[in-house]
Order: sequence, then C-alpha cells, then structure tokens
Amino acid sequence: MSDATSGLQLRSLIRKSGELELSLMNVPTPEPKADEVVVRVEATPINPSDLGLLTGAADMSTAKTSGTKELPVVTAKVPEAGMRAMAGRLDESMPVGNEGAGVVVKTGSSDAAKALMGRTVAMIGGAMYAQYRTLRVNECLPLPPGTTAAEGASCFVNPLTALGMTETMRREGHKALVHTAAASNLGQMLNRICLKDGIGLVNIVRSQEQAGILKKIGAKHIVDSTAPSFMDDLTAALVETGATIAFDAIGGGKLAGQILACMETAINKTAKAYSRYGSSVHKQVYIYGGLDLRPTELNRSFGMAWGVGGWLLFPFLMKVGPETGQKLRQRVVDELKTTFASHYTKVVSLREVLDPSNIAIYAKRSTGEKFLINPNKAG
Amino acid sequence: MSDATSGLQLRSLIRKSGELELSLMNVPTPEPKADEVVVRVEATPINPSDLGLLTGAADMSTAKTSGTKELPVVTAKVPEAGMRAMAGRLDESMPVGNEGAGVVVKTGSSDAAKALMGRTVAMIGGAMYAQYRTLRVNECLPLPPGTTAAEGASCFVNPLTALGMTETMRREGHKALVHTAAASNLGQMLNRICLKDGIGLVNIVRSQEQAGILKKIGAKHIVDSTAPSFMDDLTAALVETGATIAFDAIGGGKLAGQILACMETAINKTAKAYSRYGSSVHKQVYIYGGLDLRPTELNRSFGMAWGVGGWLLFPFLMKVGPETGQKLRQRVVDELKTTFASHYTKVVSLREVLDPSNIAIYAKRSTGEKFLINPNKAG
Repeated sequence: MSDATSGLQLRSLIRKSGELELSLMNVPTPEPKADEVVVRVEATPINPSDLGLLTGAADMSTAKTSGTKELPVVTAKVPEAGMRAMAGRLDESMPVGNEGAGVVVKTGSSDAAKALMGRTVAMIGGAMYAQYRTLRVNECLPLPPGTTAAEGASCFVNPLTALGMTETMRREGHKALVHTAAASNLGQMLNRICLKDGIGLVNIVRSQEQAGILKKIGAKHIVDSTAPSFMDDLTAALVETGATIAFDAIGGGKLAGQILACMETAINKTAKAYSRYGSSVHKQVYIYGGLDLRPTELNRSFGMAWGVGGWLLFPFLMKVGPETGQKLRQRVVDELKTTFASHYTKVVSLREVLDPSNIAIYAKRSTGEKFLINPNKAG
Repeated sequence: MSDATSGLQLRSLIRKSGELELSLMNVPTPEPKADEVVVRVEATPINPSDLGLLTGAADMSTAKTSGTKELPVVTAKVPEAGMRAMAGRLDESMPVGNEGAGVVVKTGSSDAAKALMGRTVAMIGGAMYAQYRTLRVNECLPLPPGTTAAEGASCFVNPLTALGMTETMRREGHKALVHTAAASNLGQMLNRICLKDGIGLVNIVRSQEQAGILKKIGAKHIVDSTAPSFMDDLTAALVETGATIAFDAIGGGKLAGQILACMETAINKTAKAYSRYGSSVHKQVYIYGGLDLRPTELNRSFGMAWGVGGWLLFPFLMKVGPETGQKLRQRVVDELKTTFASHYTKVVSLREVLDPSNIAIYAKRSTGEKFLINPNKAG
C-alpha cells in the first residue's frame, strides 16, 4: 500500500486498429482542493454498466495477456461490426468504475471536507477502479458507523436504478411492473422494494435455477422465458398484477415484443368492444441493459398504444430533480443492510481483474456471478 | 338511388374458420334523432387505416368472388399467423369507412340539425362505405359553399394526422421532423404544411419516382432509402434540419432503427466528450402505419436516449383536448383546396370496391394509388 500520493489505476483503451488494451498505470493522486477529499478505495463492483466501458465491444474470448506480473496487460480484438459504436473513444486511455466505497485518508481545507476525515464513504463519479480517488464532498455519501466499504460499494447504481423503476412506474401512471433478468442483484433488490411497498412485480427469468433464487426471497410472480408455456404464464401474471410497464435488461431478441403482446392480451381479456387499433391502454417497455446484443425484434401484434425506449439512471435523476434524488439516496442508506444488500461471488485485486480466468467469468454477465474489486487488496 | 329510407352498406366479416367475407347489405337508414341528420354519402376515401378493418389480416391474393351481380360477395383466406390479431372481431359483420362527405337529405328536429339541410358536409365516425349515414350534428363539418363532396371527403384522417405530427413535434420539444413513405397523399400535405410554417422536414421515399413527386411540390430534403448512400444522405439531411423525431408509416424492417442511428450520428457530429451511453438528446420514432408488416428490427446502435412507439390520431386528439382539436379542424377547412387537397386515382361505386381487379390495386397500399368511393354512383 502506498502513502496515498500515487496509486494504481485500471485503464481501458480501444485503438483505431480494432484492439482493446486493459492495463494498470501508476498515477499520481490529485491533491484535494478545498471541497475535495482523497479516498482509499476498498470496494468497487463490476456492474454490467462498467463492462460497457471496460471491455466495450471487444470479443473477450480473444483475450491475451502480456506485460509484467506487476503491471499486466490484456489485449483482445474488437469485431469490425462493434467498432462503429466505439468511434467516440478511440485511442483514448479511459479510467473505469462507476461507483465504490472506501476510507477518507486526506481532505481539503473546507469544514465539510475535514468532517469526512477517517469516515467510510460511498462514491459515485467514475474512475473507481483505482487505489486512490480524489473527489468532491458532494460525490461522497458518508456511511453509518458499523458499515464496511464492501457493504457500501454498490450504494448508487443498483439501488437507485431499482428505486428509479418503481418511481417511473408511478409517475407514468402504471400500478405494477415487469422486470427481466429478474434474479440479478438488482432484481433481488427490486423484489424487496416491491414486497415492502406493496407493488405488483412480475419477474421474468431464464432458468428454473434463477426462479429458485427469487422464490427463496419471497417473490410472488416468477415466469420462466424458457418454458413452453411462457406466453400463457406471463399473460396470467399480467392479468393478476395489472402490470403495463416493463424494465428489460436483455434488450435483444423477441422478449420486449413478447411482453407487449402479453400485456395487450391481458388487457383485452376485459375489453368490451373491438378496436382494430388494439386497446387504448398504453403499454411501455424500457430497455436499460443489453445482455443480449442482437437487434430488438418487435412484431407489433399489440395495437398502437405502446412504447419501447432506452432508460438510464442519470437522465432519470435529472428529470426527477435533486429533492427526489436525495429522498431516494437516503432510503438506500437507511436500508443498506436489508433491502439494498448486495452479494458478491468473488473479491479480486486490480491485478486479478486482468487475470484471464476471472475475465472469462465476469465478462459473461451471468446472473448470479458478481465480482467486487478491492484495489488495495494484495495480489 | 333510393328514397333514403334504406341503402347499400359494405360489410366486412372474418369467420372463426379463417375466412374473410366482404359483402353489400341493404340496410334501413336509422331515423334521425333531434340532433342528428341523414347524409347521402357521395365521397369516401379508402385510406390505409380503412384497409385494416376492410381486409384485416386476409391475404387478398386468395380473393374469390361469388354472390350476384347486384350483391357480390368476396371471400379470401386469413393466414393462421394473422388470426390472433383478429380475435376481437371474429364472426361479427362490421361496417367500414372512417370518413366521408355528402349532402344532408333529412334532419332531426333541433335547430342545429335543421340548419344543415341541403348542405354538403364532411363526416367522421365510421360506417361511411354506405349510401346513407345517420349521424350527430357534431360529427359533421359543414363545408364552405362551392366545395364538392369529393373535395371534402378526406377532411379528417390525413389532414389532422399531418397537423398532429407537427403539433406533436412542437409539444415534445423537437424542431424538425422526418417522415417516411413521404410521397403519399399525407406526405404531400405534410410538405405543404412544413413549407408554409417554416418547419424542417426530411422526406424518406422508396424510389426516384416518389422523389420526383415531392420535388415538384417544392420539398427541400428528399432521401431515397433504396440508394446505396441512404445512411449518409439521411445523416446529412438530419444535420441540416436538426430533426430528432420521425413519423414512420412503414413500421417493419430496419428503417425505424436506421433513422435513430442516423440521428445519433448527426447529433454526435457536434458532441464534445465520449459517453458510452451515447448522446443525451432524446430521439423518437413514432410508428403510425404498417406498410411493411414484418417485425420492427432495432439494432440499438443509437445510445440510450431513444423511444419508438405507436402513434394514432384519436388518442392524440384526446390528449390535446377539444380547443386545439377545433383549431386544427378550422385550419383544414380554411385550406381545403390548397394545403389539404387530396388526389385520387380512381372513383368507384360500392360494387366496384368488391371487383377483384380493383382490390388487386388498392389492397397493395401503394404510394400514389388512392381510391375514392362514391356509394351513390351507378355501377
């Protein structure tokens, strides 16, 4: 461990030639300004949203290791089809890691900064895959005493996304919701929120094993998209809950369209007159992830009152404003060890992030596999 | 021509067995109530929105004629895949025809009804493919003296849809728009509106012939989706106009996604920093038709700030409220012979609607082919 004046930082670079390079750099820690602090990062998760920047469109099955044991380098090919979406970041070495937690080891001169000295704080703002991170006081969320960095590492992205879903549901006039890839950490949080708040939630999973995970935590409506009876099962759950909005982490393939089609069937079970334009009830699917990178295929067998669109946490927070944002953040802190508890399958060092045997696991984005990085862990 | 106590009406029926039946029935004309009038229908267009009810999901290449010369009957097969969407209308004989125009030949006892006696009126409300139509005074729009029924037959669907597009554009914060199948009657109206109102409009057509139609009426931005340079041409037009909303009559295939991708490229030409989530400018495609019945295929190469959804005239009018609706209708009447003039390729009688040689043309929904029915025409 260094003296905080410099530390390792993970970088991701995609070259114009179509090659991804992941490496560790020793970078000086910026001196904190008056309203800033330096945090020794002790826990930072690998979320699907981090992988988008970390590995981008690269095919990680082509990953090769070089460099030294101290400073390993991983390279992988980016398929030509994926390069178009990478245009904005070519030949730029980028730090990675949306959120994390750690201990404040140095502060600026302001009272607000000094008050954080020695505190364990959760952080948002990027570049968290590093041993030290200098950031503004208002990018830190002080954790209650007795909370570890690992417990606070995922305070923002998943908890606020899950709360953002139920908040969006209410604001857009729906009374229940559908979630896909529902056995994920995020999905489990969403179940705990919905159980606590009395909101109907239809969980779509892709295996019986995932269904089992959700059953254990008390989920009421679980539908397996690999079952032959999927469409009927989903329709039945939609009739029971009245869900007319869905949040979809899969993105590609037919699922978004199937959800809309089943919503339309569920609504029409109580329809009184035929309309060739379908029901007038608006049905919405928000795609917030891309676990399936294939195109989204909509067969439009669900009338005309429908929408599909992208959904992201930060534009959502901008839309609802700082007051609502603060209310949601406070709820996360209050329920951090219950509703918003995260579970990790492995804790790795920065060097271990570049270990091909680890890459092979986390790059798959499998539900149930979740890595936590401790940048100050030896190894 | 009868004495208005009864008349022919066109009916569309889809049987559980998977057969479409089009027929003519002699039906009594309902007596007008106090606030109603009886209109002798003299002009009613076959819009794509009418075909949805008229022929439904039937495969019109299988059409066969039976019945008598006086009362012909056309039958056609509905492919099994299409039957699901027809569930709500099975075994129900349905009248057809959203809008039309004609002369008031009988009225109810109210002053408002009596005032319309002998007037040529435009009508909305369905069941217009009939010799007589009884309807409420407020479903009629009296046409200015010197306006024929043929001139007033398409007062509602196309004009209000075109005005609804520019109104939606403004309300949702966009400054210019894209339209597909842009050489249609509707598309030509939209060009005249945009030229008059100074709105940027990107016209997407599917042939050089269609491009020619639009050039003639002064369209500024015309892009041919069959040209090898389509994506570049579209991007250039989007940069010039700043259009971030599109109205798409095609629906199926890759076009909606291509429009979003080109919008994203156009926006990013002026972007300053890389965001792996793409630009934060919201890009919207509204699908209002289904000229291509294949699934909509979105490759999601356009960031996360996007939406695709259904758009329909009547929910739009409900949303904007009666005052705005009235303003839009008044504009249609004021500019009926200029901005909102419709052109028809053929005028047919009710019996001729059931003529296989006519069906073969209008069922294709080709841009540039538009039929007008005169239910009181001999033949």
